Amino acid sequence: AGEEPDTFFNREFLDRMSVKRSDSEWLDSKQASPDSVFLLFHKLNPLVSSGAGETRLCKLRAPGVQELLKNGDTVVVFLGVERQEKQEKDDDLVAWFALDTEDDPTEFLKTEDPGCFFLPGAMPGLLRLSDDDAGVVAQARSVLAWHSRYRFCPTCGSATKVEEAGYKRTCLRAGCRSLQGVHNTCYPRVDPVVIMLVLHPDGNQCLLGRKKTFPPGLFSCLAGFVEPGEALESAVRREVLEESGVQVGPVQYLSSQAWPMPSCLMIGCHCVALTTDVTADENEIEEARWFTRQQVIDALVKDKRAVFKMPPRQAIAHLLLKHWTGFNANL
Amino acid sequence: AGEEPDTFFNREFLDRMSVKRSDSEWLDSKQASPDSVFLLFHKLNPLVSSGAGETRLCKLRAPGVQELLKNGDTVVVFLGVERQEKQEKDDDLVAWFALDTEDDPTEFLKTEDPGCFFLPGAMPGLLRLSDDDAGVVAQARSVLAWHSRYRFCPTCGSATKVEEAGYKRTCLRAGCRSLQGVHNTCYPRVDPVVIMLVLHPDGNQCLLGRKKTFPPGLFSCLAGFVEPGEALESAVRREVLEESGVQVGPVQYLSSQAWPMPSCLMIGCHCVALTTDVTADENEIEEARWFTRQQVIDALVKDKRAVFKMPPRQAIAHLLLKHWTGFNANL
Ligand SMILES: Nc1ncnc2c1ncn2[C@@H]1O[C@H](COP(=O)(O)O)[C@@H](O)[C@H]1O
Ligand SMILES: Nc1ncnc2c1ncn2[C@@H]1O[C@H](COP(=O)(O)O)[C@@H](O)[C@H]1O
Ligand SMILES: [Mg+2]
Ligand SMILES: [Mg+2]
Ligand SMILES: [Mg+2]
Ligand SMILES: [Mg+2]
Ligand SMILES: [Mg+2]
Ligand SMILES: [Mg+2]
Ligand SMILES: [Zn+2]
Ligand SMILES: [Zn+2]
Repeated sequence: AGEEPDTFFNREFLDRMSVKRSDSEWLDSKQASPDSVFLLFHKLNPLVSSGAGETRLCKLRAPGVQELLKNGDTVVVFLGVERQEKQEKDDDLVAWFALDTEDDPTEFLKTEDPGCFFLPGAMPGLLRLSDDDAGVVAQARSVLAWHSRYRFCPTCGSATKVEEAGYKRTCLRAGCRSLQGVHNTCYPRVDPVVIMLVLHPDGNQCLLGRKKTFPPGLFSCLAGFVEPGEALESAVRREVLEESGVQVGPVQYLSSQAWPMPSCLMIGCHCVALTTDVTADENEIEEARWFTRQQVIDALVKDKRAVFKMPPRQAIAHLLLKHWTGFNANL
Repeated sequence: AGEEPDTFFNREFLDRMSVKRSDSEWLDSKQASPDSVFLLFHKLNPLVSSGAGETRLCKLRAPGVQELLKNGDTVVVFLGVERQEKQEKDDDLVAWFALDTEDDPTEFLKTEDPGCFFLPGAMPGLLRLSDDDAGVVAQARSVLAWHSRYRFCPTCGSATKVEEAGYKRTCLRAGCRSLQGVHNTCYPRVDPVVIMLVLHPDGNQCLLGRKKTFPPGLFSCLAGFVEPGEALESAVRREVLEESGVQVGPVQYLSSQAWPMPSCLMIGCHCVALTTDVTADENEIEEARWFTRQQVIDALVKDKRAVFKMPPRQAIAHLLLKHWTGFNANL
């Protein structure tokens, strides 16, 4: 620890304590405990309150979520316990849980703090969270998104039941192939994505692109899903070639980031181009071009000469760019 | 390129040419072409032939797989085209496809080369392949494994249809939520796994463990699935703590490997321990302990003093160990 940047979504405020996921007695007692914290999501958006310029997660307590817990459809995910300076007894640890409700929670909200509301949409809503909260939400939202999309057994189409405190779904059809041996169909999905700053062979320019959906003026690093059977260095070279027509040589891993939309592992790299002609893939990229180091610095410090807008500081693309300019005090 | 080790399963003999996945006319013509190559799998095991001490993939041609292709249940995956020194016209490129048959292929085998057989089981069978073949199989087997396990829509349980030359499955139920927007439910799954050599604070020992299922005497690096909402450095620290009780500080990425059992992305790291007491997690690990550099070297060169067996050279764990000993000419 301590060598990595304190990247948004990566902060580990909780200890996942995965050993407790199969201890249903302990989990039951924690779900009943007045000290436990419950985070509520509606359609994957967390319940928050705003005040003093800050957006904070609403920490609900057992009585506040009792009705929701009684509903058999509500998925409850054990997030972990608050990290302690000194070793505590397991019973004294403060446990956190997350639940998602698909139902209209209007009635529920009336009984809670009137300042509470569900963040409207993941982006850019989630970026308003504090670093501690963002780390918790990264975990909670990814697992809840999996439950929302993977209710049925992909192997046979039957219904499934939740196990392991929210980290496993098991097919309910006796005889299903998924019940023999261990298969990824039963476990939450994490999609590895490579995101890369492509450096010009002259060492003084980098390649950025923009999707049609980006805010005006914003350019960011190229990125793409790692495909089956691929090393991440191969994925970097394939995606850059597909999206920009640029051939890439050496790849250097820099750092990674959880990205809970819905459940990506962003793998951030620098890489060096072997060719410089750019032909953007029109299906995905509206425009891709080379920017000089000075242009990136101008965008970073929001100078009035800036010719493009940086990705937000919470995105690993920002870090990859900042690191390259030499403003890397935090890395 | 050129900086990375030539790791087993990572060799890219084919260019995936993903742009062709949506060009059904081109794909049809390639499936009919006498030059195209078809790889056959049975229950995810590739058809191979043995000779001169080598196990090679059997390259079938269009007439040989015609019956299988006619069967509507057979999934055909476009793997890519053979890489060319000079630019060829798209029509002249040699396309490769993979198909998996669940049916008993005995009759089929009688009509083929009698030396052909299906590799019995993935491990250690696949490790007998040549480096070129291993790279192709990594891609083919991962995608075919996904088709074999994800036939049904995880969001609603309905049947799905294959699209994008084998890289997408789309729900057949009109109105399914998975049809609105882009969701990972429709795309092949890749599971990121961290695999790490934990170095002792004294710099001269490393931590290895053995699972009950390992061959006698074999010890290897600890490894585990990256969880939702986690950076890979966090996953390294969590998995080492869970499996051995050892606390880990800095993490250094080294290299990655495709591992098609069924579809993992192995992310290989070195990391430095902060504590040294070992308590193996009995559920997963039979034994975990520290080995000296000399003991690793003895195992690497298969010296008669060796106190443990190395993982096979094809596994990234072997590379992580070899790199640490200083035998790193290939890295
Ligand atoms: N796991 C996945 N989740 C979402 N989209 C995917 C996934 N895998 C492949 N895709 C496809 O990849 C496109 C985005 O391209 P890229 O991020 O550059 O790989 C999406 O529009 C999908 O068509
Ligand atoms: N995607 C996955 N595929 C298979 N097993 C998984 C997956 N995710 C979590 N697991 C669980 O993780 C165990 C292996 O532990 P580890 O590899 O140390 O994370 C398996 O026995 C499963 O219980
Ligand atoms: Mg992309
Ligand atoms: Mg892609
Ligand atoms: Mg792409
Ligand atoms: Mg493990
Ligand atoms: Mg694990
Ligand atoms: Mg583990
Ligand atoms: Zn099933
Ligand atoms: Zn569906």
